[in-house]
Amino acid sequence: QTPLTPRPDAVSLAVIPGDGIGPEVTAEAVKVLEVAAPSGVKVEQNRYDLGAERYLATGEVLPDSVLAEIRGHDAILLGAVGGRPGDPALPPGLLERGLLLRLRFELDHYVNLRPSRIYPGAASPLANPGEVDFVVVREGTEGPYTGNGGAIRPGTPHEVATEVSLNTAYGVERVVRDAFARAQRRPAKKLTLVHKTNVLVHAGAVWWRITQEVAAEFPEITVDYMHVDAVMIHLVTNPSRFDVIVTDNLFGDIVTDLAAAITGGIGLAASGNVNPDRTAPSMFEPVHGSAPDIAGQGVADPTAAILSAGLLLDHLGFADEAAALEAAVIADLAERDPGRPRRTSETGDAVAARLA
Amino acid sequence: QTPLTPRPDAVSLAVIPGDGIGPEVTAEAVKVLEVAAPSGVKVEQNRYDLGAERYLATGEVLPDSVLAEIRGHDAILLGAVGGRPGDPALPPGLLERGLLLRLRFELDHYVNLRPSRIYPGAASPLANPGEVDFVVVREGTEGPYTGNGGAIRPGTPHEVATEVSLNTAYGVERVVRDAFARAQRRPAKKLTLVHKTNVLVHAGAVWWRITQEVAAEFPEITVDYMHVDAVMIHLVTNPSRFDVIVTDNLFGDIVTDLAAAITGGIGLAASGNVNPDRTAPSMFEPVHGSAPDIAGQGVADPTAAILSAGLLLDHLGFADEAAALEAAVIADLAERDPGRPRRTSETGDAVAARLA
Ligand SMILES: CC(C)[C@H](C(=O)O)[C@@H](O)C(=O)O
Ligand SMILES: CC(C)[C@H](C(=O)O)[C@@H](O)C(=O)O
Repeated sequence: QTPLTPRPDAVSLAVIPGDGIGPEVTAEAVKVLEVAAPSGVKVEQNRYDLGAERYLATGEVLPDSVLAEIRGHDAILLGAVGGRPGDPALPPGLLERGLLLRLRFELDHYVNLRPSRIYPGAASPLANPGEVDFVVVREGTEGPYTGNGGAIRPGTPHEVATEVSLNTAYGVERVVRDAFARAQRRPAKKLTLVHKTNVLVHAGAVWWRITQEVAAEFPEITVDYMHVDAVMIHLVTNPSRFDVIVTDNLFGDIVTDLAAAITGGIGLAASGNVNPDRTAPSMFEPVHGSAPDIAGQGVADPTAAILSAGLLLDHLGFADEAAALEAAVIADLAERDPGRPRRTSETGDAVAARLA
Repeated sequence: QTPLTPRPDAVSLAVIPGDGIGPEVTAEAVKVLEVAAPSGVKVEQNRYDLGAERYLATGEVLPDSVLAEIRGHDAILLGAVGGRPGDPALPPGLLERGLLLRLRFELDHYVNLRPSRIYPGAASPLANPGEVDFVVVREGTEGPYTGNGGAIRPGTPHEVATEVSLNTAYGVERVVRDAFARAQRRPAKKLTLVHKTNVLVHAGAVWWRITQEVAAEFPEITVDYMHVDAVMIHLVTNPSRFDVIVTDNLFGDIVTDLAAAITGGIGLAASGNVNPDRTAPSMFEPVHGSAPDIAGQGVADPTAAILSAGLLLDHLGFADEAAALEAAVIADLAERDPGRPRRTSETGDAVAARLA
């Protein structure tokens, strides 16, 4: 595959608003993106209705033709997908695997990027969080997420089910390399490998070896290792110790939700599903879900979606514009009145106004 | 195997003090146990020197003959094992797999029990933890902990390593049943299954199905399900919502370290590796490690080891004595002066004095 070559005067976005609060927060992210993009660069959008609603109406999750169209864009902005919890018409895991994970795998999003910062004004559940500013580089295309495994005698008292984590030197090296490159661009220049090498010896060995090998090429980076269970303790007692974390798909899933929670909640957590080789568009999405309970009321906080749009700008090479967007969000956060809940559009307007 | 039949007038303990602070905290746990045991019941101990020191001196981790001797006891009390971090003479993971996990597997410790309470006076890193009192029932003999898996082309750029999680209906049912029975004895009567069924579909299916099946036998228990990533969020924002958690070996490892951290640190966290069928002795140990940095100074906090001795009493059928031990620890915690660090033996003496 040849790398995508974006036009200099336009950014083409595939927008997947999704379900629940997805469309509401995505609208604000697009609003901000249009103002934040460099002058002279037009933001062009194509909207794709995918998610629980589409599935319930048509039985389709991600038709191949839609995937092919999405592939033609510079980047993807996704809101959130997911129907009413427990809806019997919606098989559990169907949208996660058929849509979210399928996009990550098909578009080779091997870097799942999750920055964790405590912004001024954000409410951490920790009594003394200190200054927190780290980023988790989570592998996105292998590990225990491949669906590999199966069961014999399913549904019987003799069932044996396996779940196979697949770890390739190829897959580990590219994500570890990306994480080192990111650490190199940060002031603290620290990288922590997170795994459970004392128990998961086969997978652990390849992660450990490759991290050592790549480390030799980055002599300025301080490297350490921490078991995933110990990370739990450090994230709530001393989260400032982290700078860049690199870890596998499942540990990354767990660690980033805790990271989001301690930095003020998943209402603020942004993420990028990044294909650093640019052989397919990368996808940016808030970490939160579709929150059906508050959908349609215009009260969802679009901050995570807006910050995800900032990661999108950064990925497309607009680093200054991405920094300006984040600065505008920080300034806006500092000004919010915790006693007065805001409308969704108010936050989008406020951030856009700062950037205009 | 025939169930162990303890003598009515004595409890025989295999004590494995281990390394670092292990011997110091174990001594206090034994001190308290001797006072806490019912009158007329003698506590007999045999001491087994296993751990990093033994390995470094002799090359032995857990000789079969020692395992056979340990098997003959009513219960095992373990301090902590582990040498100096990064000691090149100590292969990483060797003691974990060769000693700790081997004991859990050989003695069929399928219930890994980890109570989580915020005791009065304990310092939670959470700003508003609320009342926290739940117990994690972690599966202890299968899942991703079996060592199943391997690698082709190890050490090369073409390495592919697998790590296989094994989940049997037999293994899941017995631990789920144990968790329901524990929920039944608690006032809140709530059980939460923790897994990642939307991604780990094969293993998830057997956990989900069996939890539903066993639930039908326990109509008084309120059952819910939570993905392990969402558990991270709830443990730091609303830990009071949990009563009994049942989960697999790896998720349990991760969740219980976070649970320990939010309830005041692993210095207070007790655990039991329980064989509910009593075909082999159960093993009780603090969740903390050997802490070589503070070893030999008499400053380690033995509370977690003492509380583990309480779980041991409970397992042996001495429920009232176990409750008295926990009450004595709670009373002692409330009286400690956070400004004046205590000697290890002071805490053992203080708790023992309350029980005498
Ligand atoms: C929805 C689910 C499949 C997904 C994951 O496990 O990766 C989510 O939890 C996330 O972190 O993006
Ligand atoms: C030491 C290690 C093998 C062990 C585990 O992973 O179970 C520990 O973390 C624990 O929780 O008891």
